[in-house]
Amino acid sequence: MYYSRYFLPTLKETPADAETASHRLMLRAGMIRKLASGIYTYLPLGLRALRKVENIVREEMNRAGAQEVLLPMVQPAELWQETGRWDRYGKELLRIEDRHGRAACLGPTHEEVITDLVRKEVRSYRDLPLNLYQIATKFRDEIRPRFGLMRGREFIMKDAYSFDADEEGLDRTYQAMYAAYNRIFERCGLDFRPVEADTGTIGGDTSHEFMVLAETGEDVVAACTACPFGANVELAPSSPTPSDPTAGEAEETPRRVETPGRRTVEEVTAFLEVPASRLVKTLLLVADGRPVAALVRGDHELNEVKLQRHLGADTLAMADEATVRRLTGAPVGFAGPVRLDPSVRVVADHGLESLRNFVCGAGEADAHLVGVNWGAHGCPRPEFADIRLVTESDPCPRCGGRLELKRGIEVGHIFKLGTKYSEAMGATFLDPDGKERPLVMGCYGIGVGRTVAAAIEQNHDADGIVFPVPLAPFQVIVSVMNVRDGALRAAGEEIYRALRERGAEALLDDRDERAGVKFKDADLLGIPIRITVGRKLAETGSVEVTRRATRETEDVPAAQAAQRALAMLA
Amino acid sequence: MYYSRYFLPTLKETPADAETASHRLMLRAGMIRKLASGIYTYLPLGLRALRKVENIVREEMNRAGAQEVLLPMVQPAELWQETGRWDRYGKELLRIEDRHGRAACLGPTHEEVITDLVRKEVRSYRDLPLNLYQIATKFRDEIRPRFGLMRGREFIMKDAYSFDADEEGLDRTYQAMYAAYNRIFERCGLDFRPVEADTGTIGGDTSHEFMVLAETGEDVVAACTACPFGANVELAPSSPTPSDPTAGEAEETPRRVETPGRRTVEEVTAFLEVPASRLVKTLLLVADGRPVAALVRGDHELNEVKLQRHLGADTLAMADEATVRRLTGAPVGFAGPVRLDPSVRVVADHGLESLRNFVCGAGEADAHLVGVNWGAHGCPRPEFADIRLVTESDPCPRCGGRLELKRGIEVGHIFKLGTKYSEAMGATFLDPDGKERPLVMGCYGIGVGRTVAAAIEQNHDADGIVFPVPLAPFQVIVSVMNVRDGALRAAGEEIYRALRERGAEALLDDRDERAGVKFKDADLLGIPIRITVGRKLAETGSVEVTRRATRETEDVPAAQAAQRALAMLA
Repeated sequence: MYYSRYFLPTLKETPADAETASHRLMLRAGMIRKLASGIYTYLPLGLRALRKVENIVREEMNRAGAQEVLLPMVQPAELWQETGRWDRYGKELLRIEDRHGRAACLGPTHEEVITDLVRKEVRSYRDLPLNLYQIATKFRDEIRPRFGLMRGREFIMKDAYSFDADEEGLDRTYQAMYAAYNRIFERCGLDFRPVEADTGTIGGDTSHEFMVLAETGEDVVAACTACPFGANVELAPSSPTPSDPTAGEAEETPRRVETPGRRTVEEVTAFLEVPASRLVKTLLLVADGRPVAALVRGDHELNEVKLQRHLGADTLAMADEATVRRLTGAPVGFAGPVRLDPSVRVVADHGLESLRNFVCGAGEADAHLVGVNWGAHGCPRPEFADIRLVTESDPCPRCGGRLELKRGIEVGHIFKLGTKYSEAMGATFLDPDGKERPLVMGCYGIGVGRTVAAAIEQNHDADGIVFPVPLAPFQVIVSVMNVRDGALRAAGEEIYRALRERGAEALLDDRDERAGVKFKDADLLGIPIRITVGRKLAETGSVEVTRRATRETEDVPAAQAAQRALAMLA
Repeated sequence: MYYSRYFLPTLKETPADAETASHRLMLRAGMIRKLASGIYTYLPLGLRALRKVENIVREEMNRAGAQEVLLPMVQPAELWQETGRWDRYGKELLRIEDRHGRAACLGPTHEEVITDLVRKEVRSYRDLPLNLYQIATKFRDEIRPRFGLMRGREFIMKDAYSFDADEEGLDRTYQAMYAAYNRIFERCGLDFRPVEADTGTIGGDTSHEFMVLAETGEDVVAACTACPFGANVELAPSSPTPSDPTAGEAEETPRRVETPGRRTVEEVTAFLEVPASRLVKTLLLVADGRPVAALVRGDHELNEVKLQRHLGADTLAMADEATVRRLTGAPVGFAGPVRLDPSVRVVADHGLESLRNFVCGAGEADAHLVGVNWGAHGCPRPEFADIRLVTESDPCPRCGGRLELKRGIEVGHIFKLGTKYSEAMGATFLDPDGKERPLVMGCYGIGVGRTVAAAIEQNHDADGIVFPVPLAPFQVIVSVMNVRDGALRAAGEEIYRALRERGAEALLDDRDERAGVKFKDADLLGIPIRITVGRKLAETGSVEVTRRATRETEDVPAAQAAQRALAMLA
């Protein structure tokens, strides 16, 4: 591709509303442009990177035995009513009405459509297993789209749906998808982790997320440094026996201490000169309309996902100030497990069970209790459960090894759905005994555009993108320093031709621009290898071959530049 | 691909609501399934054929210098308001509202979105010419979707938009696209014609349609047998001097003849024993609310597109019966150019100018006039214009050669848009003198799914599809007659492997089905070459290699079957 004719509008300035590196760099490098909130156009360079991911995904899905289809974007309401999601899905489901007044939606996901297709076509266990996927545009009417392709409203996803005769079949298919996903993100050249994950509202009982590790990730994963264990912190089990500063102490009698205006853990522990690990925080929440007090140690954090699962609740939110005051007898910051209204269910983190002589709110303004113990002196013994976020002090729940917490970006998510959708929609097959049984399903998603963005979050520096080779829109950029110099231009063209003959995707920077502009743009675009055709050509017959990632540069005779660049890529 | 594991649900029965061959066969061959009115899922086989067209289109667009982008499907109302199409477009534009109440639409076409993109990025004549295309899903809320992929609501299109500095630049780009379109449909292996076409509501002054010739086409094209002239009959000029049965006659005086109940051309000419070419039909229409009488010869047909262009009207429709009676003084069937209400504008086809002593309605019930002449005895001389459909009796308007009328399916349409959209949206550039000028645009569409359907309309027989090789989802099907016979099965697998090693896309029919079922399915799927591995293998070591199109069959030694099949494809 000749840069001078290529639609590649780079930006010198950082766009005002771009908050993350990938958003900023994809705009600056002319990969995407915003059309409306959460809705982006892919320009030629961005589309090339997108297609790289698409092709890897397609090859690995095919290799794993999945078959590609293309499902419609506009979906009739009737199907969503069959599963009840028409009413339940919320406003992310963009509902529309056609000219005849028929209700439909823009597909945010395709469980209903695929289950409808399969229930009409699959009759017998002989037609199983079946795994169908598509790579297509989806629409979710996010309330706050942000970070460019990271959380858009219109986006490109690979979604696959599998149908098996039984749980064992689903296990096999799920394992095949798990392996395919690992191969996909490996082939993309990304540093990633598969982690155990919450199944959320999609349902089912097993689920893994594939996380691209990056400091800007919205998720946190706990990964063992000794074994393959990894889990979203939402799900990672915490230790029931964290290091306990009160171990072995004899039980004291609680004392009331004035703590005027001291509400936060920091304020209270500083004032009382005790470690945060001796404090019990009391948080008031409302689960399905009923009050819950969650107790965690001062140096720990409540994990709402775990608490919600423990309660089996559909909704969970922090209580408002009036509710806190009414049920705890104290303003926010002074609640404790004592003096709570009897209607409040009290759940304490399991790590608190062994704590002795702890500090907690007194259940009245400007006071705390010191030397409190469970089941004594007005502090009832609560129910204990794992309701806190895991920390790097917790041991690996699988091998006891050391856990690391890392930030990640979810690029893939696989679920065992079981029979949730097939039962709701009557998608059955006849087993070898002629008995009708519901299909056992799984679903498997990859955010294709988001994978490109995540790759950039993980791989960039102050000057621009540093594309992993497999996702690079071009592998080599040939920069002719001065296109008005006929010899330089001819040498650049020759190297460009040689690269293309060897099958490389190359961009020839033949623009009539200053060298500085060309270097800056080359750095911004993040093409893995740059070949600089400049003054050295006349002096020594050589050109510079530079790795974008490390800036390592070699002087290479012009005639060998293409070959050398390809060797460096391999 | 192994047929036994392939999601390829063929149907024995003809689906009830499928009216055309392609619709019927794509359903029966397991290529598509209907989700809702005008909305289809592509199953794996259908998607393979679709991708064949996509890839040819992409290669030729790239070769012609166009650059691929991907534009959003959901488009903000504001852009459509800028061009006025938000109000004008009608109900095919599906308007939606997002969760924040912002108006948007599902893109039926992308002139507004691309012009918005380009006006923000293009500054100078140095950035031109620019030609951007995408291959993507569109949505048009057709009032009566039909014929499967032929007229769907959600469909896949290639749309390109070009931007030039001036008309000369647009001419060059348009010619490049015209040439690319010819290559595309040639490479698809289709019998097609590029024809001059009406620009309709898209606007602009020049336009060509690419028509796949097929008896079931909704369009009719006039094509010269002697020169390259071709045009949609909507546009093809008719001769101002058609063969005239009254040539040289002396003018008579009109006579009134009773013609009780004779209304149609057939009834009147049979009753009066005159040729249809001596009759003048009078048709009452309403153009932009005002009455128009259109006169054409009894053996000719009114061309409403031509009449509308002649009148410069936005709307044109036949008048209702009450209007006809009020303005012509007669019930339908007896109107004539005489006795018309003075408010009626009268336009006669130019071929009528030389007609003498003709027959026409008398302007009263159950009567006609015979021996009528223009400008005499109460028959005013009307305005003459080309308002009829061309016939095979008309000469080629370019070379005078013989015209043929053929039915066709529009699969591509290219337009010169000029500055219609760039002026409405302020999309300008600075010319070499620093003067701001509007971009000069063209747009270029191909119905990708429709091309697959049109290929099937053109290429099928009573037993099923007969795919042109370039669009065939597989090139060869290897049918193992009895998979329980180990030798047959092994031979089939070996041929399948040999085909794949040679780069062929092959389908191995390894199903445990009767030979008759396999033959029927192979015929239905329309794969160009079938290799039948059956009884002859044991007897003579040979298999049958059969062309789907002609049924020609050769016995070939099994070891040479793959090679022979590929030679037959070439």
